[in-house]
Amino acid sequence: MKILVDAMGGDNAPLCVLQGAADALREFGEGMQLVLLGQREVIEQTAAEHAISLDGMEIVDCREVVSMHDDPVKAARQKKDSSMVRGLTMLKNGEGDAFVSAGSTGTLHVASSLIVRTVKGIKRPALATPMPGLKQNFLLLDCGANVECRATTLNAFAVMGSVYAEKVMGRTNPSVALVNNGTEDTKGTPIYREAHGLMRDNPVIHFVGNIEPREVPNGEVDVVVCDGFVGNVILKLMEGMAKTLFGMLKDVFLENLVTKLCFLGIKNGLRGIKHKMDSEEVGGAPLLGTARPVIKAHGSSTAKGIKNAIRQARQCVAEDLCGTMESALAALNANDTKAEKSE
Amino acid sequence: MKILVDAMGGDNAPLCVLQGAADALREFGEGMQLVLLGQREVIEQTAAEHAISLDGMEIVDCREVVSMHDDPVKAARQKKDSSMVRGLTMLKNGEGDAFVSAGSTGTLHVASSLIVRTVKGIKRPALATPMPGLKQNFLLLDCGANVECRATTLNAFAVMGSVYAEKVMGRTNPSVALVNNGTEDTKGTPIYREAHGLMRDNPVIHFVGNIEPREVPNGEVDVVVCDGFVGNVILKLMEGMAKTLFGMLKDVFLENLVTKLCFLGIKNGLRGIKHKMDSEEVGGAPLLGTARPVIKAHGSSTAKGIKNAIRQARQCVAEDLCGTMESALAALNANDTKAEKSE
Repeated sequence: MKILVDAMGGDNAPLCVLQGAADALREFGEGMQLVLLGQREVIEQTAAEHAISLDGMEIVDCREVVSMHDDPVKAARQKKDSSMVRGLTMLKNGEGDAFVSAGSTGTLHVASSLIVRTVKGIKRPALATPMPGLKQNFLLLDCGANVECRATTLNAFAVMGSVYAEKVMGRTNPSVALVNNGTEDTKGTPIYREAHGLMRDNPVIHFVGNIEPREVPNGEVDVVVCDGFVGNVILKLMEGMAKTLFGMLKDVFLENLVTKLCFLGIKNGLRGIKHKMDSEEVGGAPLLGTARPVIKAHGSSTAKGIKNAIRQARQCVAEDLCGTMESALAALNANDTKAEKSE
Repeated sequence: MKILVDAMGGDNAPLCVLQGAADALREFGEGMQLVLLGQREVIEQTAAEHAISLDGMEIVDCREVVSMHDDPVKAARQKKDSSMVRGLTMLKNGEGDAFVSAGSTGTLHVASSLIVRTVKGIKRPALATPMPGLKQNFLLLDCGANVECRATTLNAFAVMGSVYAEKVMGRTNPSVALVNNGTEDTKGTPIYREAHGLMRDNPVIHFVGNIEPREVPNGEVDVVVCDGFVGNVILKLMEGMAKTLFGMLKDVFLENLVTKLCFLGIKNGLRGIKHKMDSEEVGGAPLLGTARPVIKAHGSSTAKGIKNAIRQARQCVAEDLCGTMESALAALNANDTKAEKSE
């Protein structure tokens, strides 16, 4: 299996990408080849300076770089010699089995749609993010790629999220919930009410009903579905609240000598909480619905984040994520057609 | 000034309502009369049992009670002898200057629209909630009463929130932001993009642009505007995240003898954080846009929550909140008409 890695994407590229790639090869490299895309001399120089072995990695030289300030549509169409567009083109052509990038989310989303295309039944890929939860991690989608969604789109997200949770996160019969402002099926906008009905009647998922935002951080559901506007709010607000509360806590600990000593006493426990809430531990965000696996690593990924994103990509390929997803969506559509005929 | 108080609404009614009312009269009762609505014998018996003085309070006997399980529209139309419907009817007839209730939010919203009606330019009142923020409290609207909003509605929310922040929360030239998944004015759904333009050109508010959900808990903006679906997500997710993180923290402190001792050392600081995040300290949620002031106290309000809601109601009356709001909305409409003519 060959994983394509964007060496130029992310705040800490190329250094952390190279370190993450080397770590991945060492830890779970059996049967896996890595292809680094980026400016060859920059990659080689960085590796040399930091004594990172590039053994087992191929370099594909690309002269352009997609920046966070590029317009996604323009960059996807015009920066043909960028590490991102070249990588996705190789993926489409079968010169690699999955693509990992910590670069611009917007450009990755647009370029994936344009170049790699989507599985049957999906117009635009969803951005799904594995989120830290109290009981366990859960998958949230869409996280901002599709700010407006129809009910049928939300239902398709449910199917794709469910397949990912089973194949990559290892959940058996994953539970799927719809974000809503109440548990009753009469709650929400007309689109959410319709989506609730579709998901309830969806035979290929294990739908557990609406989930109130208050319950989302508990992590008791495997897949949480909403449109990209709401998902982006949930993603960023969870980050913001964690930061705010840890900030308040820090002020409490810094107050005087006694509180500073107390900090030493529970430091390990606090580290445990931070570790639990750490997005890099949880992994990268898969673009679900692309014809071949694309994983978006966090923009501020360190080597650990890149390594974990490569691990996810590996799992997607090993489990034929995209093929399974296409079959599940086809089963859903067949069921809908049958239901329509019998009406 | 006469404040009407629903003695039967909320999880802790009538006891906490009576205590809160008595506390309010003692602390800021000058020039203020309270009218308690509810079953007279229940009110009198509860007051007697707990030695609560009803001096300065009038009782209006109502035989029905609106429950949390009632259908809002049915309850608003049919339970004419309930404390909530009677109170709102008295408010409409000028037999009181403001109404406070800890009862069902849905019924209060519907009944306020039907009975008290709205100021010119507003179809349905907004539910605004004062939220705890790191720097200071902020007003979030809409919090769930209007799950779907047009851009003009969001712009009207901005005006109403701004007037409330100035008149009741005491903010000078309050800053107003629109929730969005990015700070650029091209972000969001078509409705949010249009709302951004309207708010930018709105001469009666101090618009500071989009706010990312990550920044919301910082409390650096006075008024945060969004539709009721998104607002409900923000409100409940902030509660949920605080609960989850405090829960994790509790587990850390309970681990062993040392960590338990550490808890004692920073107990006061933690109490400070909890106090800061306490929705009862922050106050009740005003229904903005009603022709006369209506304040929704938290359903689980203790005496303190009721007292603070009465304080807010008092302030709304003293500052002629509804009149000021109507003038501000009229100024906005006049400006729009002028702008249209000059085009």
